[in-house]
Amino acid sequence: MLSSLRLPALTSLFSPSFARRSQLSLRQPLYLRPPLAAGFSSQSAASSPPETEDRVDIKKSSQFQDRANTDRVITPRSQDFNAWYLDVIANAELADYGPVRGTMVIRPYGYAIWEAIQDYLNVKFKETGHSNMYFPQFIPYSFIEKEASHVEGFSPELALVTIGGGKELEEKLVVHIWLWQVRPTSETIVNHMFTQWIHSYRDLPLMINQWANVTRWEMRTKPFVRTLEFLWQEGHTAHATPEEAEKEALQMIDVYTKFAYEQAAIPVIAGRKSKVETFAGADKTYTIEAMMGDRKALQAGTSHNLGQNFSRAFGTQFTDENGQRQHVWQTSWAISTRFVGGIIMTHGDDAGLMLPPKIAPIQVVIVPIWKKVDEKTGVLNAASSVAEILRTVGLKVKLDDTDQRTPGWKFNFWEMKGVPLRIEIGPRDVSSASVVISRRDVPGKQGKVFGISMEPSILEAYVKDRLDEIQSSLLEKAITFRDSNIVDVSSYKELKEVISLGKWARGPWSASDAEELRVKEETGATIRCFPFEQPQGTKTCLMTGNPAKEVAIFAKSY
Amino acid sequence: MLSSLRLPALTSLFSPSFARRSQLSLRQPLYLRPPLAAGFSSQSAASSPPETEDRVDIKKSSQFQDRANTDRVITPRSQDFNAWYLDVIANAELADYGPVRGTMVIRPYGYAIWEAIQDYLNVKFKETGHSNMYFPQFIPYSFIEKEASHVEGFSPELALVTIGGGKELEEKLVVHIWLWQVRPTSETIVNHMFTQWIHSYRDLPLMINQWANVTRWEMRTKPFVRTLEFLWQEGHTAHATPEEAEKEALQMIDVYTKFAYEQAAIPVIAGRKSKVETFAGADKTYTIEAMMGDRKALQAGTSHNLGQNFSRAFGTQFTDENGQRQHVWQTSWAISTRFVGGIIMTHGDDAGLMLPPKIAPIQVVIVPIWKKVDEKTGVLNAASSVAEILRTVGLKVKLDDTDQRTPGWKFNFWEMKGVPLRIEIGPRDVSSASVVISRRDVPGKQGKVFGISMEPSILEAYVKDRLDEIQSSLLEKAITFRDSNIVDVSSYKELKEVISLGKWARGPWSASDAEELRVKEETGATIRCFPFEQPQGTKTCLMTGNPAKEVAIFAKSY
Repeated sequence: MLSSLRLPALTSLFSPSFARRSQLSLRQPLYLRPPLAAGFSSQSAASSPPETEDRVDIKKSSQFQDRANTDRVITPRSQDFNAWYLDVIANAELADYGPVRGTMVIRPYGYAIWEAIQDYLNVKFKETGHSNMYFPQFIPYSFIEKEASHVEGFSPELALVTIGGGKELEEKLVVHIWLWQVRPTSETIVNHMFTQWIHSYRDLPLMINQWANVTRWEMRTKPFVRTLEFLWQEGHTAHATPEEAEKEALQMIDVYTKFAYEQAAIPVIAGRKSKVETFAGADKTYTIEAMMGDRKALQAGTSHNLGQNFSRAFGTQFTDENGQRQHVWQTSWAISTRFVGGIIMTHGDDAGLMLPPKIAPIQVVIVPIWKKVDEKTGVLNAASSVAEILRTVGLKVKLDDTDQRTPGWKFNFWEMKGVPLRIEIGPRDVSSASVVISRRDVPGKQGKVFGISMEPSILEAYVKDRLDEIQSSLLEKAITFRDSNIVDVSSYKELKEVISLGKWARGPWSASDAEELRVKEETGATIRCFPFEQPQGTKTCLMTGNPAKEVAIFAKSY
Repeated sequence: MLSSLRLPALTSLFSPSFARRSQLSLRQPLYLRPPLAAGFSSQSAASSPPETEDRVDIKKSSQFQDRANTDRVITPRSQDFNAWYLDVIANAELADYGPVRGTMVIRPYGYAIWEAIQDYLNVKFKETGHSNMYFPQFIPYSFIEKEASHVEGFSPELALVTIGGGKELEEKLVVHIWLWQVRPTSETIVNHMFTQWIHSYRDLPLMINQWANVTRWEMRTKPFVRTLEFLWQEGHTAHATPEEAEKEALQMIDVYTKFAYEQAAIPVIAGRKSKVETFAGADKTYTIEAMMGDRKALQAGTSHNLGQNFSRAFGTQFTDENGQRQHVWQTSWAISTRFVGGIIMTHGDDAGLMLPPKIAPIQVVIVPIWKKVDEKTGVLNAASSVAEILRTVGLKVKLDDTDQRTPGWKFNFWEMKGVPLRIEIGPRDVSSASVVISRRDVPGKQGKVFGISMEPSILEAYVKDRLDEIQSSLLEKAITFRDSNIVDVSSYKELKEVISLGKWARGPWSASDAEELRVKEETGATIRCFPFEQPQGTKTCLMTGNPAKEVAIFAKSY
């Protein structure tokens, strides 16, 4: 066959273990622990078929033995937050590392969370008048190289394509890159195109968004939170007046805030960045800051009022109603797959992931339980019918009917995957036409209710109510945690104490940029934002004792 | 302000005309004609405000004058198909070229067509058991370089990242690339990951899909059809048996076929590629081939049965139910933004784009018509209420109520944009509580019906019926066109004649690969496929006179 004739090299050159070897040769830091394969199964050692040498080695390790014995594969969160985070990502099958250092393969379960974020925001973006489109990822180096010499730390975050079509390119291309406070390459190509599309006031406002991948060269990476390549949406708008641009920038941070609270159950604090922390190309940067389980802040989304900075640089002008040429007023705003990391680190616990129902890829898992063969059919039929009832009303249901695993194993597995509700159906439940329902967020017996009728209208209502309760409960829990870890301070001494305890400090601030940088140097904390919600009354700057208009929030951050 | 202090270079280094200059310096072939700005408006020269020098120049050109006078901006399709195609893309605002040669900016109207494709296929992929995920775009050069020396024409289609983090990389990265018949880089990273995820038969089938951007270094580019970067989906599956893999490959080409017929109204011919045309890594390649308006074939989607070619190369194995290690059987399948080009070139006419209702971003455009000021409010109210009625039943409606353009201009504009139905509402229609409805696919008075009641139930039903009719009618027209341009041939002489007339030739074929290559060399036509639908009866190879099992279709292609 010709097709096989064409592949003489492929089969001979790559040995079966090529993949593994090449991975090792990259000397990739194992920031994800080795996936523990069949390690969840207490029966695996006895019943599973021979494995490859590598995997047998893992099994023989004492770590694996401990875990297999106790059915625990996740480092407790309280013991080592970072190890817990990586364990959850590996074991809940959210992501794996790619073959290139710092890259990430987003696995179906993790990607489904991103899809839930996309589905919600896409609707909101369109409701607020934006259209999706797509800009090429390659940007000519000349768009930014002229500034390179002026900005320290410029090139380290670029990936450059220098070879194309088999020869050196005359001009290097910049792979589409997001350069926080260093180089706003998206804005360069956006303005390059805007100059061609915007002619008169009739072309404004121009409001677009794209879902895309972005590359940033990172030395220290962490799955979802900081990766060499990530996925995001970036909105770009152009307006005729500064008022419209400001309104738009605020509107979009509000869209993000609502998403965080209502969908992700993350009580972010929305506010304005300090000048020091403002995006280099922006007049104002708005942000949503989330408190993670380790009390570090995660900047989860930003919206910039770019003023005329880019339109002046690129000559993005329009003819106004009086025939005058003017520069447009612009905004840009983005959230990324980093948000998935924020969800993990906000709600997860020692048992693993805990997902808010509104963004959970699986909202209800059904575990049928039988011992005798003659019970199996009845139980599975009932389980299927319950699954169908709930799917009909739009719920995302997984029926785990495999007989490869015990019910106990399944309970642990789906808890670890963060599924909000579990329905158990055994032979007794079949006879009484009822089910047992357990909440992921309330551990043990307290979260378990027996005897819920299988009658569709009753069951549907019960499940929906519980999901709503879980959604609210996760938010409330996160608010309580957040509020008990933000401390009002009135002096730099207090601020330092609060930060050293790992908490967030909130205090009046009107000091200089230099003082702000000093705080960062001395405490590791930065101003996360001046929150939109400000306390009443007169304020005195915690650093200088001068009058202050606003309180700022200081915290260590990701 | 500090933020402005940070941008000293930006405003001084880039002159306002930077964008335009840098574009010229790239010596980019103007494969898109210059967007004609206000050129659609017959009133523009008189009423519009002063423009930049560039645009005034365009206006003064004789070409612009001709077009402005006749309100024609699209080269007639019959006169120059390629110029027509580029005109449609520019004027209907589907895409623009990016600043890097061969790249494309997909504008909102063009992207909305791609979104319609995504929305449909995403549902079908999930219904057939696939999950979305995301693989990183960077692939280590070592994954493929070992084969480079064996394959001629290898490097020309790669883009290589050689600089990252400010220094030369030890190993060059390959930007995620699709290499038709040259190098299947997606399959390399997919298998690299599959070896980590697949352990036993319980992990199979593994069925995933990703929506991503891909880069291919192209010397001759054409928007949507062939660009340096494009968007696509790529499915990848692994199975325990060859039968399952074959079934999957056929299932997915069937999903594509149904999409083409039922959504895009493109009567593709589905079939199997010849060995010569089969993807280098595949045992079998299935394809859908579409006839464009110039009668060239467009390969609009492919599905590959990869057999064990990649699993053997990468060692992607599983333990079967008997405890034996086996290599998995794989498939991959893809369609790309090229499909948008196929839609344009299938249905468009001299007036511009013509979109099938099921994938049209705007299904109904409403043009209110008034002359006197006292008519305006009544007409606009009626138009808004009609828009609302139709939106309520899920139709995609645009109300073009600007008073910057005349109704005649709007008619031409939305026809050029390919909107299937137009509703006109004037003062008389308001008094009679009726509307005028025009079909895009039936020109002139024949396509225009007066006096359709505004009563919601009547109007809804009428509009929906017309949209269904247009959808069917576009498909029928395309089938008629296709069938009248496929000629059955029984000799090579006949084949050559048919191809020289620009048509497709269908004839029995059992000749050698060398003979197939000879046909390509001598006629420019290739075997597009052995169609699944085969004529009955005995067949004699058109080239050799030997018995043949199948007919093949030969055509020139994009």
